[in-house]
Formats: sequence, C-alpha cells, structure tokens
Amino acid sequence: MKLSTRITDLFGIKYPIIQAGMAGSTTPELVATVSNSGSLGTIGAGYFNPEKLEQEITRVQALTDLPFAVNLFVPSEKLYIPEKIEHMNAWLRPYRRAFNLEEPVLNISEEQVFNKAIDIVIDKGVKIVSFTFGIPNQAVIKKLKAHNIIIIGTATSVEEAIANESANMDVVIAQGSEAGGHRGSFTRTSNNQMPLVGTMSLVPQIVDNVNIPVIAAGGIMDGRGLVAGLVLGAQAVQMGTGFLTTEESAATELYKNAIKQSLETDTVVTNVFSGKPARGIDNEFIHNMEGYNDDIPDYPIQNQLTNAIRKAAAKEGNAQWTHLWSGQSPRLAQRLSAALLIEKVVKEAENILQQ
Amino acid sequence: MKLSTRITDLFGIKYPIIQAGMAGSTTPELVATVSNSGSLGTIGAGYFNPEKLEQEITRVQALTDLPFAVNLFVPSEKLYIPEKIEHMNAWLRPYRRAFNLEEPVLNISEEQVFNKAIDIVIDKGVKIVSFTFGIPNQAVIKKLKAHNIIIIGTATSVEEAIANESANMDVVIAQGSEAGGHRGSFTRTSNNQMPLVGTMSLVPQIVDNVNIPVIAAGGIMDGRGLVAGLVLGAQAVQMGTGFLTTEESAATELYKNAIKQSLETDTVVTNVFSGKPARGIDNEFIHNMEGYNDDIPDYPIQNQLTNAIRKAAAKEGNAQWTHLWSGQSPRLAQRLSAALLIEKVVKEAENILQQ
Repeated sequence: MKLSTRITDLFGIKYPIIQAGMAGSTTPELVATVSNSGSLGTIGAGYFNPEKLEQEITRVQALTDLPFAVNLFVPSEKLYIPEKIEHMNAWLRPYRRAFNLEEPVLNISEEQVFNKAIDIVIDKGVKIVSFTFGIPNQAVIKKLKAHNIIIIGTATSVEEAIANESANMDVVIAQGSEAGGHRGSFTRTSNNQMPLVGTMSLVPQIVDNVNIPVIAAGGIMDGRGLVAGLVLGAQAVQMGTGFLTTEESAATELYKNAIKQSLETDTVVTNVFSGKPARGIDNEFIHNMEGYNDDIPDYPIQNQLTNAIRKAAAKEGNAQWTHLWSGQSPRLAQRLSAALLIEKVVKEAENILQQ
Repeated sequence: MKLSTRITDLFGIKYPIIQAGMAGSTTPELVATVSNSGSLGTIGAGYFNPEKLEQEITRVQALTDLPFAVNLFVPSEKLYIPEKIEHMNAWLRPYRRAFNLEEPVLNISEEQVFNKAIDIVIDKGVKIVSFTFGIPNQAVIKKLKAHNIIIIGTATSVEEAIANESANMDVVIAQGSEAGGHRGSFTRTSNNQMPLVGTMSLVPQIVDNVNIPVIAAGGIMDGRGLVAGLVLGAQAVQMGTGFLTTEESAATELYKNAIKQSLETDTVVTNVFSGKPARGIDNEFIHNMEGYNDDIPDYPIQNQLTNAIRKAAAKEGNAQWTHLWSGQSPRLAQRLSAALLIEKVVKEAENILQQ
C-alpha cells in the first residue's frame, strides 16, 4: 500500500491529506501552508461574502502556486418565520446584554452569494471546489465542469454518496459521525433522523457503492487514521480538528485549548449555534438552550442571530457561550504548525506501511 | 504489519479475530467453528442460568480442543419499583394478548447466577472470560486469575479502558459507537450521557492510554476492517453482526434477513427491549415505546418483561415486535458459514497487507 492514490494523482498533491474547509477557522496562511506541505489546503468560505472570498483566494494564490480548494455551503431550504425569530431574539437578549450587542440585521440571500462565489472561483482560476450541505444544481455543476474545475461533494450515508455520484461530482467525502463541526447531511434516515454513521462503517459501505474516489473523514488525526482510511478503501483522508489546533488556524487560543483539554466523550451534535447540526464540545450555551421551548430557526438565520454573541464571548475568554467545534479525537490534537503536523502524520503513516 | 499479534500469542489463536459474545445468538456450533477456524469463539452466556451455561461449555468442548471464551454480564445496580413494573406490564398487555402470553415471573437474582457462572467456568477449565456492563469485583478477578484464566473487559471510553486496566483486566475491548447490540458502557460522560464514540476515534485514544492489549470493535465486518483495526493500534478485532448472519448463529432467518436487507442508517440505540442501551434496527416496538410516559425498568427487569413477546414475535415472523440487534455495517453482512467468513476476512486482510 502506498500514499500515492487516485486522489493524489487527480488533485496533483503529494500526500492523500485534505485540510477540511472549516468555515470561520481557516486562514490563507493555513491553506497555503497545507498545500505547500504536499497536501490539499481548503479555504472555508461557507460564511464569506463575495469581497472576502475574492481577497482570501488572492492571498492564498500569493502564498502558494500549488493546488488548493474552496469549500462552499450549498444554499438549503429554510423557513423564515418572524415570530420564531422574535422568540429567539428574546431568548438571546441576556447574552446580548452581557456584551452590549444589538440585534443583528439578518441577511439570508444565500442563493445570490452562492452564485457569486461560483463566478469568483471560476474567475480566480481555483482548481478544486468542495461542497457541504447538499449538491448544487446542474447549472452550477455544468458551469464548473466547463472550466475543468474538480468538484467534491459530502456524504454522511451511502444514499447521499450515490446522489453525489449521480449528480456528476468527481469525488465524495464520507463524513463519519466522529467528525467535528457541521454535519454535511442533506437527507433523512428511514426513521427521519440525520445520518450519524461511524467512519469505520461508513467508508467501506460508500466505497462499495460508488465508482468515484472517496475521501474518509471523521476522527482522523494522525498517521494511524490516515492509513486506516486508505485501508478501508478511501483514496485520501480529510482532517478538520487536526488542523484547527495548528498555529496557522484562525481558532482562538481559548478554542484551541478547549479542544486540547477535552475528552473524546465531551462533544454533542447540536443545531443551537447555527440552525444546522454540528458536533462540538458541550457547554453552557447548549445546556441553556435545552430549556428553549420552540424550534431553533433554520440556518443561516440562527447562525446570524448567535454569531456576534459567540464572537464576543470568545474574545472575552468565555468558552461557555461560544461554539467549540471538535471531532471525537481531541486527545490526538497537536499544537504544531500545519507543516510539522503533516510531516508527523506522513512519517507515522510511512512507519506503519513499512512494518 | 502481520496478522500475528500480542493477542494471537496470548490467546493461542491463529488470527486476531474474536467472535463477540452475542447473548441469545451464539450456538456451540458457532463458537466451536470459529475456534476451529483459527479465531476465538465466544459463548454468549449473558442470559444463561447455571445449567444452560454448563451444557453449552460441555458441548463446545466436545466440538473443539482450541481456546474459546465465555462472555458474562456483570451484575449492575438496578431499581426494583413495583409500580413501574406494573405500569410497563399494562403497556405490554396488548403485545402479550396477541400471542396469548402470561405476565412473566421475574427472576432478578443476577448476583447469585453470576457467581455460580464464575465457579462453572473455573470448574470446566475455560481459559478466557470476557465481561460486559462493567468490571467484576476484585474477589472474582482474583479468583479467575488464581486459575490462570485470561480476563477481558469492555470499554466505550478511555476512562472505562483505564478502569479495566486498573482492575487488572488482561485485555480490553474498545467498543465503538458503530457496534450492534448492547453498549458495554458503565460510566456517564461529563454531560451525563452514555459514551458513544466512533471506532476510528476510540481505538487509538484507548491504545495511547493503556498498556494492556486492545481489541477493536464496532463496524468491523471484513478484511478492510480487520487491517484498519490493527493499523489503529488494536491487537485484534471483535466481530458481532458479522457472525450473527452466519449459518451457525442462533439468529432466526427473519433476523438474519432483516440485517441483510437493512441500511447503514437504519439502526438506533434504545433501552426499550432490555432496560440497557443497545443498537438495533429501528422498528414498530421501538416507535410505540416512544409514547411510553415513564422510565423503562432497569435491566434485567425490562429484558424479562419483553422476552417472551420478542421470542413469540420472531417465531411468527414478526420483525416489528422483536429486537434486531445490528451494527452500522449491514451492507457488509455475509450469508456464509462462520468458517468461510473467517477464510474470506483473512484472505482480504492478507491481500491488503501484500499491496
């Protein structure tokens, strides 16, 4: 078994390691360092406006000539119900008061921002684009393919992986339940739940049911996880939490330390921060929200309603009122530069392969 | 990397494959076939009375001279609250009526049965004993060790693995969230939940925190899973659902077919059948119980209250009113003899290792 795979050939990278597009936590330095280290850096553009996206791509391109990806959130159906937003604003008032914050003005024109982002990645000559929260429409897919852009989808079940392949995605990420941050799920299970299948189960079952290359994600933090992912049939692995604690990540010290100090059992999957289910370290904000007797507004509404509160809390060193996305392997987290992390992971993997 | 490990040496087996002690679903033929095929068969004795345990061990010993294990359930704290039992009996009345069943006479003398089982495994010369639902007291552990019996504990978190090592267990099973059947958990997380950590995350974090050999469990059904488990640092893997659909298993055709026809997203973790959380295929009995507005009686009370109903339902081909324990990899299930399954898994593993 080798570290050169269908994915390393397709992406033109040296190692089968993808840095997850962690919206809010990537920096041009992180993305460029990962790509310059022989892996695939990803700009987490899920929350960017067009100007910010253009700036970040320009900055990354100034720092590396090697391939990198841009991760975008696919706009999803959402309910805009003024009463429910008012109800949530009332609930959030004490948090806002604590930081002297105003109620935010909502901007939920996801569709326009998304379409503009597609034009930008094409104009800027980005080679690889990955998607979370669903599959873009065929017009978008055809447009990207017409410019020879490699497109990567995200799946949390075999059904979602097959849907990605049918939609002409070039590659699919198999996101296991261990993964930190937002669940990429866009279907429901037979009992109307969100798919939550462990990486060990999800990867081989997806590999057996699609012909496009699969990227294993969820709980992978070191060389053991990298080789295990390849053994299960993946052509590369994606690491999120692993890169979140590196020097180049945009995560605050508070956030990085919270991960380093947490246990594998400390995370929960919750939609209270953004309106979409995501795995993060359990804290007071999540607990308090258990007492909220109404639906949580859909993404991106809830995300915008809580955003300033989370930023202010993080700024003031309050880990209890901000999101702390993390996968289930925090004990494996390293405080290194992204370059040293990749070097370490590759060395561990090569040692395993030589045994 | 080789298939001979610390565990194969310790247990005196050829391949690092353990057949899980699936209470209610193992047969002497399954256990002996697995052991005769170079792996470790396990008698699922969790529900046995002393007579039945003695018979099964005798039968297995007649079928193989090779090592096999006996899996026992460690007696746990339970509340016996007559009102709650009456309440549950009232709820179960329609199910009992459908099959003309009487209310069962409860026998919750777990402690006596467990201590008798310890004497039996010693008298019968069993070489390996594994435990689920906790750690036996030191008197039991010392007694088994005095007879040179290898003892295996079960952990669903690093904390539980360390507790097993501290209690002098020789080996610990790392049970990932993908695993089918009962959760071995005996602690709660910081947010008072049951640990539910994916195999990809759990195994390396346990391996890094104990010195005793670790057995990886959860979602492992083929050679890919076997090698992945070893790559993550385990010295062997345990397969449950994989052996449940073999010819020698005691599972009914209804049960085996339900697994073969299910999806990776069809299972839920529920305590409605036995009083302890277990992963199984979602069905009508579980759905109906969602309407039950009281606590589910503790194990083994609930297990005894629902047992005859589940048996009768299974007998009449009703998959909706019986438990259908399964892990999250049902698409990988095979309908083979246990010997052919092991041969297939080992061949796949050897092919991966030769790549």
